[in-house]
Amino acid sequence: MKAEILNPFLAATVEVFRTMAGLELRPGALRVKGQEDGSFDVSGVVGFTGQVQGFVALSFRESAALHVAGAFMGEAVAAVDADVKDAVGELANMVAGGAKSALAAAGYDLRISIPSVIVGPGHTISRPRGIPCFVVPFDTGEGTFSVELCVRLEA
Amino acid sequence: MKAEILNPFLAATVEVFRTMAGLELRPGALRVKGQEDGSFDVSGVVGFTGQVQGFVALSFRESAALHVAGAFMGEAVAAVDADVKDAVGELANMVAGGAKSALAAAGYDLRISIPSVIVGPGHTISRPRGIPCFVVPFDTGEGTFSVELCVRLEA
Repeated sequence: MKAEILNPFLAATVEVFRTMAGLELRPGALRVKGQEDGSFDVSGVVGFTGQVQGFVALSFRESAALHVAGAFMGEAVAAVDADVKDAVGELANMVAGGAKSALAAAGYDLRISIPSVIVGPGHTISRPRGIPCFVVPFDTGEGTFSVELCVRLEA
Repeated sequence: MKAEILNPFLAATVEVFRTMAGLELRPGALRVKGQEDGSFDVSGVVGFTGQVQGFVALSFRESAALHVAGAFMGEAVAAVDADVKDAVGELANMVAGGAKSALAAAGYDLRISIPSVIVGPGHTISRPRGIPCFVVPFDTGEGTFSVELCVRLEA
């Protein structure tokens, strides 16, 4: 995967969390995601079509999801309820939308789907074999979450 | 949601499972999905963009996933491993692809993303507020699974 595809997602993540949730994220080390890698409680997933095909997932342990959703909503939240799911879906949507705009400016045509939000203890997200996938952890100050980008470029 | 959007997904589900897994599915009653509706162990999710925006999920309890994946692969499977995930992702991809072709023939422009496969006990899948979502259960003969279609038409 080209850095010019990945970087807009990382930049959009930092920008969205700063502006929408007042959180200054610290990105961790990029790594290749294995098929069985990662186990989360709440994930927001947005698919792409066009020249860039695949999906991005923002995946949280419950405590990090509550922290981030609370910062986004401006009030403390104690459980993963409908508002928390909405917050996670909207954050995923904004990250994907920000990356889409940057990629469009770089000449890539892509469209983004509406977000789906997965809630379930210890879930994993996998993709078809042969699709490259990279993970970057982000430290929120109260727990980390992962941005997983699994995409291929249309031939 | 118009029946002309939903029906191609139901027809594609029956056709894909018949031709690819030798299973004669019996569709159950269509219902509107609530935000908290449904709890599954394995889901294959494909996003759409274009005139039809949203996603379709094929969601299984573990026993039904093993049955269907085994029928698809032609051999019994005992656990949700990488092959089962691939089977569920590929079935979701083929259902979405079949529906896309039928919708294209009816004049709808849409594109489909690559599938993501969620594994986690008792997970739920939700979508943003205001997006209509319908669920149809399908009886495989050894357990049921659900097809959830959450889409809006582009204005």
